[in-house]
Amino acid sequence: MKKLINSVDSVVTDALRGLAAAHPGLRVDVDNQIVVRASGPRPGKVGLVSGGGSGHEPLHAGFVGYGMLDAACPGEIFTSPVPDQMIAATEAVNGGAGVLHIVKNYTGDVLNFEMAAELSAEEGVEVASVLVDDDVAVQDSLYTAGRRGTGATLFVEKIAGAMAETGAPLPEVVRVAGEVNARSRSFGVALSACTTPAAGKPTFELKDTEIELGIGIHGEPGRTRSAMRGARELARTVMEAIDEDMPISGDTLVMVNGMGGTPLIELYVVFAEVADYLASKGATAARSLVGNYVTSLDMQGFSVTVCLLNDELTRLWDAPVETPGLRWGR
Amino acid sequence: MKKLINSVDSVVTDALRGLAAAHPGLRVDVDNQIVVRASGPRPGKVGLVSGGGSGHEPLHAGFVGYGMLDAACPGEIFTSPVPDQMIAATEAVNGGAGVLHIVKNYTGDVLNFEMAAELSAEEGVEVASVLVDDDVAVQDSLYTAGRRGTGATLFVEKIAGAMAETGAPLPEVVRVAGEVNARSRSFGVALSACTTPAAGKPTFELKDTEIELGIGIHGEPGRTRSAMRGARELARTVMEAIDEDMPISGDTLVMVNGMGGTPLIELYVVFAEVADYLASKGATAARSLVGNYVTSLDMQGFSVTVCLLNDELTRLWDAPVETPGLRWGR
Repeated sequence: MKKLINSVDSVVTDALRGLAAAHPGLRVDVDNQIVVRASGPRPGKVGLVSGGGSGHEPLHAGFVGYGMLDAACPGEIFTSPVPDQMIAATEAVNGGAGVLHIVKNYTGDVLNFEMAAELSAEEGVEVASVLVDDDVAVQDSLYTAGRRGTGATLFVEKIAGAMAETGAPLPEVVRVAGEVNARSRSFGVALSACTTPAAGKPTFELKDTEIELGIGIHGEPGRTRSAMRGARELARTVMEAIDEDMPISGDTLVMVNGMGGTPLIELYVVFAEVADYLASKGATAARSLVGNYVTSLDMQGFSVTVCLLNDELTRLWDAPVETPGLRWGR
Repeated sequence: MKKLINSVDSVVTDALRGLAAAHPGLRVDVDNQIVVRASGPRPGKVGLVSGGGSGHEPLHAGFVGYGMLDAACPGEIFTSPVPDQMIAATEAVNGGAGVLHIVKNYTGDVLNFEMAAELSAEEGVEVASVLVDDDVAVQDSLYTAGRRGTGATLFVEKIAGAMAETGAPLPEVVRVAGEVNARSRSFGVALSACTTPAAGKPTFELKDTEIELGIGIHGEPGRTRSAMRGARELARTVMEAIDEDMPISGDTLVMVNGMGGTPLIELYVVFAEVADYLASKGATAARSLVGNYVTSLDMQGFSVTVCLLNDELTRLWDAPVETPGLRWGR
């Protein structure tokens, strides 16, 4: 294993030191692993908190900033943050209008965010939560009851963040967050496993001609192991899996997301095929993202997330955002 | 070799199809491999053209847009574009105020851009060029007389692009482009080789405990092969190489750039160490970029580029930019 780290134990805190040094718009509590906007909570604005295991950067800490999250609490690599982090983040972003927890559907995350929400409520903070479970690959998995939360998390954070920025009340922010999740589906493919620093070797082995269809973002198994194929056929496989679960039509928001070890040129090759698939269904990629956004350390591969847009979601997607991982239009 | 491609021969054109589908603000001539702003040339504005071999995405085509390049001509993987592409791009962006060619110092690129500049001048277009040669690792190399052009290319494109956007005349844009190059230095480290689609196997072999110090962006050899070490020591090695060549002081613009296969969490670990090194010299990372910007396909590793800022460069760096690969503030 060759990794750019100082020690296996300090990867997350060292990366948070780097995040703090690179982004003065963030206030980073390195010891307690909490990242909030340096500008502090805005009175009357709903606060948005997310979090989850590290190793998926820029998710979540890279999406803290204007128009998106108010705070993120990163856990250790592929490990849920603890309730204390979530409670501290919730209190830090409470501007009096309540706080929304955006939770990816993994058992540890769900339990810890539930506990944090209860304890925060006892302290007088109004807390709601939205569960993201967009991955159509498997119904239950190693770490999940129900579907896994993957790429749609970014869409929920962006669109709910834009809604919160307008000063909308908590129920409105909750509604739109749930709507984004309900209208989004994802499917991922691994060309290689990832290597966690602690394990020091790949989480599974794939032959030189093999891929894993429906991979999870921690390297957990997908639907099936299969033979490698060309980008066109791979994109079709992925899009058909999504289309079968949620018929695709009209204007869509599409992310072709790299898993961390795949170069951008290949992601654009995939995007071309995804766009062709959409056109064949009479749909369009009205909005898109191509790049590494919801990653799995150094895994090679990609995922596609499709969200069926409507006017409201499109407007909120287009609203200004200014975070380390996503910036435009302000 | 597992890559997300349709065929070895169509990688670049397929990726350009994807670029076109994802970014309606670009006009992409897929067959001739030319990418220009869809808005066309602005009368009276200096046009900026860059280009080079593909495999370094988002460089260069991902930096076409407001505040940066007017056009890019990507060659085949790690292969210079041909003069015809450069001439067509030059004509397409000519708004009557002249055109600047931003050329990375590789023999093929230099010769082809020279020929294109001569032929464009014969057609009545005023053309100037700036050579980027920021890599302190080696004096000459496999593809270079003199130093290689690497990360500073992005700085030159951004800052000269901002200057051009103000309506400044060609000599002013040339001056600031040259100044950015003169004040910038880079050094790269490979943890692994990259694999070009045509070769189908890594361009060189590194043992599990070995790294290449001073790697080029095509996998060409650097200064020395060395033992793997921790992020802190690696960052110090890189920063000392830069510092020896150009003493670092004051406010700097710093990029910790991933080579394509390295996850963001590790780049932030490196950035923390780079920031510490700067602080130890009484310097600061007043502006920074952390991510994959000037890549080498799937290579694992990173490079650091440091530019010594002054007020003018800082102001131009902060100016709005809106491209697929770099966006802020508009």
